[in-house]
Amino acid sequence: MEKFECLSCGGFYPADVFNYFCPRCGDPLLVASAKRGRTFRLERRSSLDAFQDYLPVTRIDPALSLGEGWTPLVRMNRLAESLNFSSLFAKNECQNPTHSFKDRGTAVVFQKARSLGIKAVGTVSTGNMASSTAAYGGRAGVTTCIFLKEGTPAEKTLSTGMHGSQLFLVRGDYGNIFRQSLSLGRKLGIYFANSVDPYRIEGYKVASLEIFLQLDRRPPQFVLVPVSSGGHLIGLMRGFLDLKRDGLADRMPVFVGIQAQGCSPLARAFARGRETWTPFKNAATIAHAISNPSPPGGRLALKYIRENSGLMLGVSDAEILKAQRELAALEGIFCDPASATTLAGLKKLVKMKLARPRDVTVLVITGSGLKSMETLKEHRIPVHKTTVAKLESAVRSVFPET
Amino acid sequence: MEKFECLSCGGFYPADVFNYFCPRCGDPLLVASAKRGRTFRLERRSSLDAFQDYLPVTRIDPALSLGEGWTPLVRMNRLAESLNFSSLFAKNECQNPTHSFKDRGTAVVFQKARSLGIKAVGTVSTGNMASSTAAYGGRAGVTTCIFLKEGTPAEKTLSTGMHGSQLFLVRGDYGNIFRQSLSLGRKLGIYFANSVDPYRIEGYKVASLEIFLQLDRRPPQFVLVPVSSGGHLIGLMRGFLDLKRDGLADRMPVFVGIQAQGCSPLARAFARGRETWTPFKNAATIAHAISNPSPPGGRLALKYIRENSGLMLGVSDAEILKAQRELAALEGIFCDPASATTLAGLKKLVKMKLARPRDVTVLVITGSGLKSMETLKEHRIPVHKTTVAKLESAVRSVFPET
Repeated sequence: MEKFECLSCGGFYPADVFNYFCPRCGDPLLVASAKRGRTFRLERRSSLDAFQDYLPVTRIDPALSLGEGWTPLVRMNRLAESLNFSSLFAKNECQNPTHSFKDRGTAVVFQKARSLGIKAVGTVSTGNMASSTAAYGGRAGVTTCIFLKEGTPAEKTLSTGMHGSQLFLVRGDYGNIFRQSLSLGRKLGIYFANSVDPYRIEGYKVASLEIFLQLDRRPPQFVLVPVSSGGHLIGLMRGFLDLKRDGLADRMPVFVGIQAQGCSPLARAFARGRETWTPFKNAATIAHAISNPSPPGGRLALKYIRENSGLMLGVSDAEILKAQRELAALEGIFCDPASATTLAGLKKLVKMKLARPRDVTVLVITGSGLKSMETLKEHRIPVHKTTVAKLESAVRSVFPET
Repeated sequence: MEKFECLSCGGFYPADVFNYFCPRCGDPLLVASAKRGRTFRLERRSSLDAFQDYLPVTRIDPALSLGEGWTPLVRMNRLAESLNFSSLFAKNECQNPTHSFKDRGTAVVFQKARSLGIKAVGTVSTGNMASSTAAYGGRAGVTTCIFLKEGTPAEKTLSTGMHGSQLFLVRGDYGNIFRQSLSLGRKLGIYFANSVDPYRIEGYKVASLEIFLQLDRRPPQFVLVPVSSGGHLIGLMRGFLDLKRDGLADRMPVFVGIQAQGCSPLARAFARGRETWTPFKNAATIAHAISNPSPPGGRLALKYIRENSGLMLGVSDAEILKAQRELAALEGIFCDPASATTLAGLKKLVKMKLARPRDVTVLVITGSGLKSMETLKEHRIPVHKTTVAKLESAVRSVFPET
């Protein structure tokens, strides 16, 4: 029978999608059971099918998939050159069905929900996780219950609502809404697959397995990933831990979790050598997707980082905006500010002389720039205004004859 | 040496990226030269590499690719059931790097530009093609010159500008800007890869090759695709024509080009049995991405459709909005209104008794809903407003205990 475990206090519990926090210490539980004799099934086209042995599912129902995964690992020569690096890559998770990494987790959640006969799935989110959950719910014919914080931009609300979700715009404290969602879920039979849901976290592992294969079965030296609740980081690390356990990888990459300085409870705790975080007051950053002052998976993320020689870093909004512009201008990748923290973090790593030119490095690009269009006003983007009659001279002023 | 040909008047011309309209009849030229003994190279990961034999390139430079192609072919069971169909698929082109089908064409354009040593690439577009060209230009380190029509929403302008393009916001007639771009390009050495550029069109073929493989090497009965300039439709049809010529497919799918009735010069010409179109006056539709009153590839598209037993159809804005909602709510695919014309068109096909339940049918979903957020206000999307204190009763009113 499937078990959940608490890595902090060592307890084991029967797997239960309505109870995935440790009753003793409050940390998120993780899926404990692992299959024996795991192999990649690369003859299968879909990512879930290919890596099924690494996932807590006994069969994959393709009717619940939207074609998530197998996102490209893009070699970034121009950025690498600017940093004097030889091998720099972007794992571009924006090419998932709803344009963020969340789809990998959501896909596993819905496989699980179907196998358990669950009729309603919920989530608490103001962005990527809401639209991902709503989309997979629409496809599965499973009612979804989305809690959004009051003040969520109408665009995000409406694009989520297109999938037929039940949307609740809730006034009040976000942490409160999160806790309420879990107790309500238990009462009403709604599976609230929030950011640190154990099945969601298992889904994130797959990106690491793909990176490993895309690098010809070698782990990179560094993986940089934006950190909010901690769930994504934990999942990615678990992917490489699985590879190491199975003897496929001889070592772990150094994982670097990046936070925006304006909301960096984990980077702050890491810098101070603390085992856990304290709530971050007056959070304010342009990287909305990772602005989480009380990350529920934070202590566990810090533990994973500490035990595997990883790092946590904070970067400023100015550094994030610069990095977002560079990713777009030098490599053609238009990502959201949260994703751009990875490049800003890498620059810091270089300055600190922790990353060296020949280190194979992967930036995990978590969400599309199209999801944070409000950021664009922060960039000064020049536009030439002209008329058809004056077009030639306007163009000539910029492009002299070649 | 590579040649361009005019399918309308039969002429051949040396391939020249600065001259891709027939000097005699004005139709767009197409790449004439085809490789012998073409094969798929499926051991290669990237789509361009796998299908290189079908493309007018001698080598693929991975530094110019963003990981375009191999988009999922999603089986849509719930929509199929609602239409009493057995095999309905979405080829979801939103999972390309800039979230539209344009990337397939742009990727080939930049391979060509690099091999010819071209220093600047341009395009005329107000949306998907602008951001695609800008992104690939950024990655290639090639300056891009984008002509946008005055009145283009700031969001689209700025997201394109993030890639470091030279943006020209031009007052005047769109057809005029299009013609000026080509003559200016010749004068200044800027390769204007507009919507019917012959290399761009070759890039679109690859989606058809992928569909063929994803259906286990069988052509579908129907392929429905939104039509604007005609370039995409022509490219997709050429893909299947190549398969037929090489003896891999025993027949062509029936291609159905869909236009929005509010701007449907080609559907109108088709309905009237005309060989060519006349400019569509007072164009007005919610499907902005395909609102082209004077499609430069229109006559050629009509010829391809006629010669291969295809069809052109128009659908209303109301039908488009309904289809957009259904794709999101029943299948989790949030596409732009242009893409939704395909589902609206399929319903028409069923009503006309032209498509039968057992016909394997593919809808080509061309662009993400995130690119036309202004559409959302047309949908009445319900939101429950509440507070943390009243959350339980609010949720209970929608989700009775299970």
